Amino acid sequence: MKQKDIKIPEATIKRLSTYINCLERLDDKGCQVVSSELLGESCQVSPAQIRKDLSYFGEFGVRGVGYATKSLTEEIKVILGLDCIWPTVLVGVGHLGHALLNFTFFREHGYRMVAAFDSDPGKIGTEVEEGLHIQPIEKLVETASREKAAIGIVTVPASSAQSTADLLVEAGVRGILNFAPFKVRVPDNITLRNVSIVSELDNLAYLLSNKKPRRRLKKKK
Amino acid sequence: MKQKDIKIPEATIKRLSTYINCLERLDDKGCQVVSSELLGESCQVSPAQIRKDLSYFGEFGVRGVGYATKSLTEEIKVILGLDCIWPTVLVGVGHLGHALLNFTFFREHGYRMVAAFDSDPGKIGTEVEEGLHIQPIEKLVETASREKAAIGIVTVPASSAQSTADLLVEAGVRGILNFAPFKVRVPDNITLRNVSIVSELDNLAYLLSNKKPRRRLKKKK
Repeated sequence: MKQKDIKIPEATIKRLSTYINCLERLDDKGCQVVSSELLGESCQVSPAQIRKDLSYFGEFGVRGVGYATKSLTEEIKVILGLDCIWPTVLVGVGHLGHALLNFTFFREHGYRMVAAFDSDPGKIGTEVEEGLHIQPIEKLVETASREKAAIGIVTVPASSAQSTADLLVEAGVRGILNFAPFKVRVPDNITLRNVSIVSELDNLAYLLSNKKPRRRLKKKK
Repeated sequence: MKQKDIKIPEATIKRLSTYINCLERLDDKGCQVVSSELLGESCQVSPAQIRKDLSYFGEFGVRGVGYATKSLTEEIKVILGLDCIWPTVLVGVGHLGHALLNFTFFREHGYRMVAAFDSDPGKIGTEVEEGLHIQPIEKLVETASREKAAIGIVTVPASSAQSTADLLVEAGVRGILNFAPFKVRVPDNITLRNVSIVSELDNLAYLLSNKKPRRRLKKKK
């Protein structure tokens, strides 16, 4: 394992996550051994890139044969820390929160949604997933610490993002995935990742506007 | 402008998108001139990083004084291609699609949602935003080409992601933002960005599991 010595590119980590999905799909189709060509075809990543990504973490597969589908899946899960259950709470059950709570990939990757919170009294008690009822924000610290939540997902509006993050920290979560369009502050011992959906769209616009021909329309007020 | 000569890091483009949000908030507060320190404080990016990001695109601001808030906002919008309207369509009005349609940042950054489509007959005709009614998938090619849609957002399940992308290409969009957990194939002249929400969470898990102490729980079946 070279893992401790060198910094692994973030893009590699993202691809490893994709490889899990592709490997599980291939496994479902009865494919017990995959070549890097077949895996690459399935994930739309070059075989050389797959080999390079895996090489950060050791040697996998048999030259000229390929990888054992199930065991490579398990090994990537160990690399990503998905060989354990991550108790997760979500705060803010609007449309985005709802979408995430119902996202089957989360369960498959080892995240267990242990609680969901919202500040809207009208939503309290609603069942959002089997056995998961929306709780009031006031219960966040108590419930999340009792459930030993390790990860908190923030899908509240920008204006309540910081107070939500503060409560999650108080509840003892170790990592926060923040979807609110506001950069929250957390103590150094908390791992924070901000996901900006508008940035993804802006990145697409940037790529498009640097390609010819550019269709430019007059902005309407 | 050095823009044509060198490859701009993707992280720079993402930060530029964040700078717009922070600058607009500062402008709302009546702050007409900002230093890179103040902007950095607001966006939680170091002043040196801000200066480096901007330096890819030319010289901005006045040394020892700062940047004119409004004009820097406009200049970044030009860099990102947000100085025009991007007619955008969305396919798949589930929870995630709903969340994106109601996302005010999209409008502020110059995206105009011109149509939304879904395959569920029960949803057709529902107004999702002011004046925007869900249309059947069968209308996608006709409507999106009439509206000169440049960008298509895909928020359908994995199983219909490829057929949706094919229809968007047929309708003449130039860029696709794909949220479906399936890597679609598009012709070379189409710019595609895949957003994987589970990868973001996996990245957080990876960072957490490489920090001590690690709380490891036995996986329940």
